[in-house]
Amino acid sequence: MLRHVVLFTWNPDTSPEVRLATLEALRRLPEEVGGMTSFAVGPDAGLVDGNADTALVADFPDVQAFRAYAEDPRHLAVIAEHVRPHLASRSAVQYEV
Amino acid sequence: MLRHVVLFTWNPDTSPEVRLATLEALRRLPEEVGGMTSFAVGPDAGLVDGNADTALVADFPDVQAFRAYAEDPRHLAVIAEHVRPHLASRSAVQYEV
Repeated sequence: MLRHVVLFTWNPDTSPEVRLATLEALRRLPEEVGGMTSFAVGPDAGLVDGNADTALVADFPDVQAFRAYAEDPRHLAVIAEHVRPHLASRSAVQYEV
Repeated sequence: MLRHVVLFTWNPDTSPEVRLATLEALRRLPEEVGGMTSFAVGPDAGLVDGNADTALVADFPDVQAFRAYAEDPRHLAVIAEHVRPHLASRSAVQYEV
């Protein structure tokens, strides 16, 4: 199984409303695109200084399923509309679990 | 449940042997420290350019269990000995799942 992990840090001036709209758009991805066996996205809990803002962890049966998701126009549209305009930095890994 | 996610990028000159030793040290954490309900650490699969090098995802029953792990001397020793000396950058989030 391939685990896709992304940590997002938003521009500091990104409003709470925009952060929530982005989170909701990301949360619709399983329903709109699918292909993953598990999916959890959420805001940092504020327990440790210096953390990123939002984490997304999604498991896929294999690399092909991940690539189909990553290249899906609906996924790309969410990135273009809800992520990239507010993104300060992003870190990601895909690894076998 | 609280999910702890860390993405590590190692100094470019970190040898494959050191990377493996670091991975093995991190993999011993459930056995040596415990407190998590799931734990998966592994190297990036090399599917996407610009990714970090290693991901660690661990789930804890609650914040207290996470803090006990984070502050445990054996965890801190692994960080001091196997992570910090080779670390170029690190990104982390803890979030409710």
